[in-house]
Amino acid sequence: MLTITQHQKIIEDAIAKISYPPKPKDLYEPISYIMSLGGKRIRPVLVLMAAELFGKNPYEAIDAAMAIEVFHNFTLVHDDIMDNAPLRRGQQTVHEKWSTNTAILSGDVMMVEANKNLAKIDAKFLKDSLFTFNATAQGVCEGQQLDMDFESRDDVSIEEYINMIRLKTAVLLGGALKLGAIIADAKPEDAELIYQFGENIGIAFQLHDDILDVYADPEKFGKQVGGDIIANKKTFLLLKAFELAEGNDKTALKHWTQLQQFDNKEKVAVVKSIYDNLGIQNIARKSMEYYKNKALNVFSKINVDDEAKANLLVLTHQLMDREY
Amino acid sequence: MLTITQHQKIIEDAIAKISYPPKPKDLYEPISYIMSLGGKRIRPVLVLMAAELFGKNPYEAIDAAMAIEVFHNFTLVHDDIMDNAPLRRGQQTVHEKWSTNTAILSGDVMMVEANKNLAKIDAKFLKDSLFTFNATAQGVCEGQQLDMDFESRDDVSIEEYINMIRLKTAVLLGGALKLGAIIADAKPEDAELIYQFGENIGIAFQLHDDILDVYADPEKFGKQVGGDIIANKKTFLLLKAFELAEGNDKTALKHWTQLQQFDNKEKVAVVKSIYDNLGIQNIARKSMEYYKNKALNVFSKINVDDEAKANLLVLTHQLMDREY
Repeated sequence: MLTITQHQKIIEDAIAKISYPPKPKDLYEPISYIMSLGGKRIRPVLVLMAAELFGKNPYEAIDAAMAIEVFHNFTLVHDDIMDNAPLRRGQQTVHEKWSTNTAILSGDVMMVEANKNLAKIDAKFLKDSLFTFNATAQGVCEGQQLDMDFESRDDVSIEEYINMIRLKTAVLLGGALKLGAIIADAKPEDAELIYQFGENIGIAFQLHDDILDVYADPEKFGKQVGGDIIANKKTFLLLKAFELAEGNDKTALKHWTQLQQFDNKEKVAVVKSIYDNLGIQNIARKSMEYYKNKALNVFSKINVDDEAKANLLVLTHQLMDREY
Repeated sequence: MLTITQHQKIIEDAIAKISYPPKPKDLYEPISYIMSLGGKRIRPVLVLMAAELFGKNPYEAIDAAMAIEVFHNFTLVHDDIMDNAPLRRGQQTVHEKWSTNTAILSGDVMMVEANKNLAKIDAKFLKDSLFTFNATAQGVCEGQQLDMDFESRDDVSIEEYINMIRLKTAVLLGGALKLGAIIADAKPEDAELIYQFGENIGIAFQLHDDILDVYADPEKFGKQVGGDIIANKKTFLLLKAFELAEGNDKTALKHWTQLQQFDNKEKVAVVKSIYDNLGIQNIARKSMEYYKNKALNVFSKINVDDEAKANLLVLTHQLMDREY
């Protein structure tokens, strides 16, 4: 069994080897740019690991893994336009570095590239792979739409929020794992179990992100602590706080989330103190644990030796136990 | 053999029957909107006709045809953003009616929908179908990029222009026909011939459009005659005129294409008179005839009864002989 680092290296090597046509330059250069910005390559690694879990040589799962990674990067390019984001992994976003039109069209051709990678899969597994890939892609688009819809709504429930992060983040983790299972000829029930594992881990992962945004160690956190609070991002924490707050807490929460001009540090401190009054961190951690345990419970039902499962469990704990 | 109108009805019926999820509303409503704006449905009809040409029941080619039509509409939605177009078939474009973000994301999910239609194809033909579809989609993206690149260039050659319209317009006609051939289990050499037929017809078709923009009967033409001249659109006619013009014609052409403010009618009249001096219409018609004849020559080599070929020939002549 390969280590996680070895799996990551398979992906990095494959990305380094891609060669897009030299022309039209503005169509293909942004693809190489965004693909080279790095990241932990979690999603394609999940494809390889799931394939390996069900007995396939992970090197032979590279086309499916690349389909997932190129698709993921396509969503980043288009999401960054929609979110008006200037930076991605500390570098200029594609629409900032080139233009919105370039980011739209390069994104489109990345979607085609993702499908080209997918089409290389063994004909025997192609139909199932397409079904899973397309359902995943559709879910991710729905999640992004819901996320945008939420910005202008003030009645988003926790249930709706969980459904949004499920679609926007979690189905891609589930889809990546299921794709790996399919091309390894796993039994349909095992492919479905590993999908459920990924989806629940994905929800837990996003809840963890929401918590870390407020409670991470500022010395170690890669981003600004409290960024979500400053931006009024409707996270689990803020939605839960609005659900529970009464009296002064409620008044203060409304006041600070409606203020147009404020001192960032002061806003973060006030909102955080409201979260602390209401025990929001604890509630969020319990919800996170719920989805994590649900994931691990589903994972335990997969009909494969415990030894073969070790890698995915290690990765899960690495992802979930990070404190920054 | 079905008539062209019957083929169109198969497509319209299929479009009328589509039901997208009700939510998220802003993701799916624009798809129904753009798909219902009509048009002649040439591309999906080509899929059906090619399938029928090679002996398949056209009703059984509907998934492939819908993949092509949904993909085509996706490109319209994204192209309209990039071209800043307010109207499409006389109605508001998606980004005007909703927003740019909605048009980006609805377009993305249309690309997924196109792939979902494609994935329904018989597993036996799936790999070849995906290869043709993805190559087609990539070509269309390249064509759009080149078209945008040309806007800021003043050294575009006729050869580059033909390559741009080949990619932007013609490969989709070729790809639609080839897809129909593939799912009808046509021989690879026949599938390639019908692709070449479509590509050459597509180029001839676009050259015809360039000519009609200037020389159509204003009483019958659906659009403003001279629209390309007013917008300085680098058509075959303008590029050829720049190539051939000398002396006063060249000075006048430069002057009028650089003017920021002008009377539309006057500009159209002046540029048209330069075209007439240089015999541009005739040159463009010869080029159009060249591609049309190349298409018909390739078509004649397809190893199928002449009777079965009648429909596609009638459609070709309908498209090429229109004078407005």
